[in-house]
Amino acid sequence: MGQVVVTGGLGFIGSHVADAYLARGDTVRIIDSEVGAVVDGEDYDTDPRCTVVRASVEDYLRGGGDFAGVDRVVHAAAHVGPAGILHHVGTLGVDIVMSTSPVLEACLAADVPLCVFSSAEVYGRSGQLAEGDDIRVPRDYNARIEYAVAKTLTEVMTVNSRHRGLRAIVIRPFNVGGARQSRAGGFVMPTFVQQALAGTPITVFATGQQVRAFLAATDLARFLTDHMDAALAAGHTVINVGNPGNAVTVMALAERVKELMGSSSPIVRVDAKTIHGPLYEEAESFHKVPVLGAAAALGWRPQLDLDDLILQTADYYRRRSDVRADRAAV
Amino acid sequence: MGQVVVTGGLGFIGSHVADAYLARGDTVRIIDSEVGAVVDGEDYDTDPRCTVVRASVEDYLRGGGDFAGVDRVVHAAAHVGPAGILHHVGTLGVDIVMSTSPVLEACLAADVPLCVFSSAEVYGRSGQLAEGDDIRVPRDYNARIEYAVAKTLTEVMTVNSRHRGLRAIVIRPFNVGGARQSRAGGFVMPTFVQQALAGTPITVFATGQQVRAFLAATDLARFLTDHMDAALAAGHTVINVGNPGNAVTVMALAERVKELMGSSSPIVRVDAKTIHGPLYEEAESFHKVPVLGAAAALGWRPQLDLDDLILQTADYYRRRSDVRADRAAV
Repeated sequence: MGQVVVTGGLGFIGSHVADAYLARGDTVRIIDSEVGAVVDGEDYDTDPRCTVVRASVEDYLRGGGDFAGVDRVVHAAAHVGPAGILHHVGTLGVDIVMSTSPVLEACLAADVPLCVFSSAEVYGRSGQLAEGDDIRVPRDYNARIEYAVAKTLTEVMTVNSRHRGLRAIVIRPFNVGGARQSRAGGFVMPTFVQQALAGTPITVFATGQQVRAFLAATDLARFLTDHMDAALAAGHTVINVGNPGNAVTVMALAERVKELMGSSSPIVRVDAKTIHGPLYEEAESFHKVPVLGAAAALGWRPQLDLDDLILQTADYYRRRSDVRADRAAV
Repeated sequence: MGQVVVTGGLGFIGSHVADAYLARGDTVRIIDSEVGAVVDGEDYDTDPRCTVVRASVEDYLRGGGDFAGVDRVVHAAAHVGPAGILHHVGTLGVDIVMSTSPVLEACLAADVPLCVFSSAEVYGRSGQLAEGDDIRVPRDYNARIEYAVAKTLTEVMTVNSRHRGLRAIVIRPFNVGGARQSRAGGFVMPTFVQQALAGTPITVFATGQQVRAFLAATDLARFLTDHMDAALAAGHTVINVGNPGNAVTVMALAERVKELMGSSSPIVRVDAKTIHGPLYEEAESFHKVPVLGAAAALGWRPQLDLDDLILQTADYYRRRSDVRADRAAV
């Protein structure tokens, strides 16, 4: 069993990745600034196979930290959420690049394989989105596009660093959901579930006809534990990880959440700008469904269906509050 | 008359910008790391209206420098050239972003209008390229694409920083040429002219049928001195600056250079990878011709035609050597 570094390991995706490696028997070093943390990390602190460094990875590396002796690095630290990013418009791009660049250099220095999380947002368009597609950058720039272009640049720098000897994969996750995901970033699944639990209106943005395909964070984490080595060996670089079988309109998601949870919440359509402010924009991907290429070829299949994903999220928030709820606009 | 900061002011484009402001009567502060310098700066040092700070702008700002009392900043510092960038594959992206981000912040802090140089490379495709077009990022990443995506990110950060109060324009120059342009970065015009002068073979890459429209650096600089204020007032953000009237195939350019200069050089087609190495790639814009939108609306017109541009470049290199020739592969 090996030593795994997970940046952003106290965040939503990062904590599921850390859990999956710990469950496999690996030793995990979490490096997290706590800015986007969804857990306080006490469970990790008391786990003898886990260490938590409470610092941004860039500060950690600048302060003399390194990845010597590490078997893999998963870089999950990032600003998150369509609303979360609005507070960083104009600096989001440099923040994302400045978080990723030192990780690339440290992995090169220690010759450690790396997984970088990009985003399905990079595609910049609607439809069935495949790894072999070109990327589109819409001409009317906004915070979402700054996020997408910065993620694209980290992809390019990661892939190009193969010429310097880096072993790395880039994952483009599609609409990840599950326990611990905060509604603070503007994510739809925990927002709907928490609204349904509270009996307050379930707020559907735009027409509600936008399509999302929800992937369980546990399925995403399982790709890393079970298939990362094979992905590196096969020379895959940019990998879609999503669950096309869970594709659903946002309106249908609202209805399903309400029904499954037996909630009395009304479903209402609202203008997202009235909640998240004038800088909020809907995704260019009105219909966003992954085409699975490399991940499917490696034998990975998503397992958790939409109902179970809703129920898992509901189960979590029945027992706990959303620790970042104070940053949520709705 | 005002105070103008020109980053990269000892480089090719930057020095023409500095010259244009000095000719207008402004005071100019050049900030240049000398990494891509094409002049030693002694003429500027002895000009009472010019100051040269020999440092990268990021070091200058980190060391306490600022833009207080400055009337405008032109950020022209960058890695340059399709061959020049190959040495920086994997770090080019962060270098470009890390050079531009502190300039944005310093302009915001001092409330100074800014011009950022992007590149026509951002379009990522072939044809007539207009400001209103979406950008394409081809899926097969290479150094050119890292350059293009990094330039795109600086565009987005600049435009998005309007929400923080920044007054700024972004220029996408198309194939700038003229006196002082070094062949070191892999630029075609000074390469052909210097080959014609030396009587050595004029080396045409690919089929020679790729189309470029060459813009005089003096025309580009004139856009800034004469139209930047109007561009800001009119709310233009991303502005093509190029000369569609000078569109020509690279093969025809080689023939015209040979003819105008009365050179005995043979014209030969070569594989660029044999000269610049395996990482060299031709531009995705096989035909790259600007559509002038904002610049034309503001009344700017390019003036120098292709023959005069060739003759100016030839005149310069008849009298001087290429100071960066030791870094040129051919």
